Amino acid sequence: MNYRMIWYIMGQICKIAGLAMLLPIAVGMIYSEDHVVLSFGVPFLILMSIGLIATMKKPEDKAVFSTESFVSVAVSWITVSAVGALPFVIAGEIPNYVNALFETVSGFTTTGATILDDVESMSRSCMFWRAFTHWLGGMGILMLVIAVLSSNDARTMHMMRAECAGPNVGRLVSKSSVSARILYGIYISLTASELLLLLCGGMPLYDCFIHAFSSAGTGGFSLWGDSIGHYNSVYIEMVVAVFIILFGVNFNLYYYLIIRKFALALKNEEVRVYFGLIITATAIITLNIMKLYDGFGDALRHSFFMVASTITSTGFATADITQWPVFSQTLLVLLMFVGSCAGSTGGGMKVSRWMILFKTGVKELKYIANPRAVATVKMDGKPVEKGVVRGATSYLVLFMMLLAVSLLILTLDKYSFEESASAVITCMNNIGYGLGSFGPAGNFGGLNELSKLVLCVDMLLGRLEIYPLIMLFAAKKR
Amino acid sequence: MNYRMIWYIMGQICKIAGLAMLLPIAVGMIYSEDHVVLSFGVPFLILMSIGLIATMKKPEDKAVFSTESFVSVAVSWITVSAVGALPFVIAGEIPNYVNALFETVSGFTTTGATILDDVESMSRSCMFWRAFTHWLGGMGILMLVIAVLSSNDARTMHMMRAECAGPNVGRLVSKSSVSARILYGIYISLTASELLLLLCGGMPLYDCFIHAFSSAGTGGFSLWGDSIGHYNSVYIEMVVAVFIILFGVNFNLYYYLIIRKFALALKNEEVRVYFGLIITATAIITLNIMKLYDGFGDALRHSFFMVASTITSTGFATADITQWPVFSQTLLVLLMFVGSCAGSTGGGMKVSRWMILFKTGVKELKYIANPRAVATVKMDGKPVEKGVVRGATSYLVLFMMLLAVSLLILTLDKYSFEESASAVITCMNNIGYGLGSFGPAGNFGGLNELSKLVLCVDMLLGRLEIYPLIMLFAAKKR
Repeated sequence: MNYRMIWYIMGQICKIAGLAMLLPIAVGMIYSEDHVVLSFGVPFLILMSIGLIATMKKPEDKAVFSTESFVSVAVSWITVSAVGALPFVIAGEIPNYVNALFETVSGFTTTGATILDDVESMSRSCMFWRAFTHWLGGMGILMLVIAVLSSNDARTMHMMRAECAGPNVGRLVSKSSVSARILYGIYISLTASELLLLLCGGMPLYDCFIHAFSSAGTGGFSLWGDSIGHYNSVYIEMVVAVFIILFGVNFNLYYYLIIRKFALALKNEEVRVYFGLIITATAIITLNIMKLYDGFGDALRHSFFMVASTITSTGFATADITQWPVFSQTLLVLLMFVGSCAGSTGGGMKVSRWMILFKTGVKELKYIANPRAVATVKMDGKPVEKGVVRGATSYLVLFMMLLAVSLLILTLDKYSFEESASAVITCMNNIGYGLGSFGPAGNFGGLNELSKLVLCVDMLLGRLEIYPLIMLFAAKKR
Repeated sequence: MNYRMIWYIMGQICKIAGLAMLLPIAVGMIYSEDHVVLSFGVPFLILMSIGLIATMKKPEDKAVFSTESFVSVAVSWITVSAVGALPFVIAGEIPNYVNALFETVSGFTTTGATILDDVESMSRSCMFWRAFTHWLGGMGILMLVIAVLSSNDARTMHMMRAECAGPNVGRLVSKSSVSARILYGIYISLTASELLLLLCGGMPLYDCFIHAFSSAGTGGFSLWGDSIGHYNSVYIEMVVAVFIILFGVNFNLYYYLIIRKFALALKNEEVRVYFGLIITATAIITLNIMKLYDGFGDALRHSFFMVASTITSTGFATADITQWPVFSQTLLVLLMFVGSCAGSTGGGMKVSRWMILFKTGVKELKYIANPRAVATVKMDGKPVEKGVVRGATSYLVLFMMLLAVSLLILTLDKYSFEESASAVITCMNNIGYGLGSFGPAGNFGGLNELSKLVLCVDMLLGRLEIYPLIMLFAAKKR
């Protein structure tokens, strides 16, 4: 394994993460929060020092294969989370380091699960940083590095694959760094559009930033204890719901729309299934919860918002779903597993991975019924490579096994089976809310330190799609 | 599809099932229960009539491929369950037909879930039939037909595969009918041994029959509301626990032992993992529940029994696990999914299927770390065929999807998420007890008719391993 190169990549990521800290410092200056000098200054210096030392000398051997990429991604995400938690501790807003780490990992992985009892008392700079971790983690920090710094393509393609979500990641254009820039361009444009639309709805500018960042990463952190429900505005809820759905779409699609390849965009089976699921689930839940609300419109409003928030793994809330019928709650839990589209900022198993799995199951049935028939798994009209099918099934198996192990450890804590299971499911799928104590109205602060650390690992496993973290421990030296 | 042949096979199965009804009739005679003439006489006549009409003329085209086998198995199991439920209705002991059907399907599939509030008031003949369905379903009714009647081998191999459990079923000897006879021989010997040992422990003869049948099929029906715990005898508990573990072992292993191929038996990886899991889980749960019992010995006793009862999918109980810590309950729920060995009478996903899935996951990790390395999935030192790996992964996907759909329908009923999920899991894995209302002390009688029918389908899906039931609806006419 090329350790020098891993160290070098990590250095670049630390530099970018360090520079990102200048934003909350600026916010602190604007709102005259003096603590920012120390609380963000110290981690800024740590990140920049690591970054400058690690990138001082470019390694001679620039070979980066998939193992190196996975390990770099894992090491970088862990380092950035560990240092990114310091502002909360130094500012005294989350004094316990494990809690601060949980909050930061939850931010970068765009989970949006919080340990805070009282979100609203947080200072403006810390709140900004908290939401900004969602934005950075959504499209990926390494992706940002590639967009800003990189030039070598053979290397960066592996790295994009390692950080990007979904069973099958392709480049948009032949140069990875250009692809990364296009993706970040789309990402920034969409975020800015949402921000403007929220501003038009009468939301204060600061709130707009927080919620636009949080939506863009499909994260779920809000300024308020009652999340988006706080504004009690149908307009704001609909803007947020529509945008998180858009952020859950494969970004390649927007690129196709920009370069006017409409046929390519329309042919995308995954997106059609994704929208189909949203519409179906919204309709079913609306009918199921109707008796709890004032008529059809109100039920539709909450149903649509919660379905969008859940399938995209955002975790914003406008309603206390623990009051909903068990049927609707169960449907939402199932949507947590489905997740959004590959190549989006959303979490979960991803719609396309399930489609590949489903089609593989159907193919097997056809094979059993008629062993002489040759059946292939197809997506968007093209046969899916065997490696992708194999990868999707292995992913499901590893995911289920890691979920089982995490669940066992979590049940050593004081919560019920249902609550523990929902905590693990919501963290591994990067949603942010569970059932019972971990519902939209609750938080994760009551868990013991071990449980919190396990959930931190689960959130990273979910966001980085398992392989990077396992490689970190399992990869043999070469 | 060769409908005449399916009809013919079903006829043979009905004849055997009809003859099996003579046993409870005999029991009824012994205990002077007059109702047996009507309550078992009518279904006996129905089964024999179907059987004689269907087998009157042997079809000219005897071709049976896997589709025909799967459909025959599905149709036969449904028919035998539908008619097998009649004695309970006619005798007035389970007046509601859906309830009687649930109880019978639960019997034949060796699930052991009951709808009865008061098990103990059942007549001797009905109770005997209830336990005997476990015994018939354990090794398989079609297998019995093959053992008793069949001669044609090319045909019967497909049928053995269709009814047998596990990812990979092989014949013991070249003739299927001889294989079936050997398997039934081992099955009868083991059942008789347990019966004798229970008798030595002072259990009344009638009770011995019931519990030996129930153990042999790893079913779980008992004479008593408090199951095996009723006898409060360590000896009886240990005999039952050891025997259900033995019935959960691949029967091929016993054949190897009989023909003195000890090396082949010892090489079996699945059995070693199966015993490893039992020992590990027992140890962990013993430590976890120690504070609830009088010392280590008592905790070990209950822990061992419940682990054996759960991993083999039996569902006997000696303790109310709903009082156990959530950690131990969760470990038991995970064991439900693991299941016993392939080719045994136990349920669940099967140990070997999980081993194949796990090894496939590890192989994928190795492949990602080093794409040039050639890794193969091996079991017992031999590479596993690609078809078997593909089958195991497809099975997991289909299993999870069917579980999700069943769960959704069940949550329309009045139970909590946790209870509904445990009901579906326990039925699909053919265990017999769940959590909360469906715990060892509860029963499934409170569910509505829709839920009961869904769970009937789930039990059949679990016992017949999904494919036969799907083929019944999905197979195209040829």
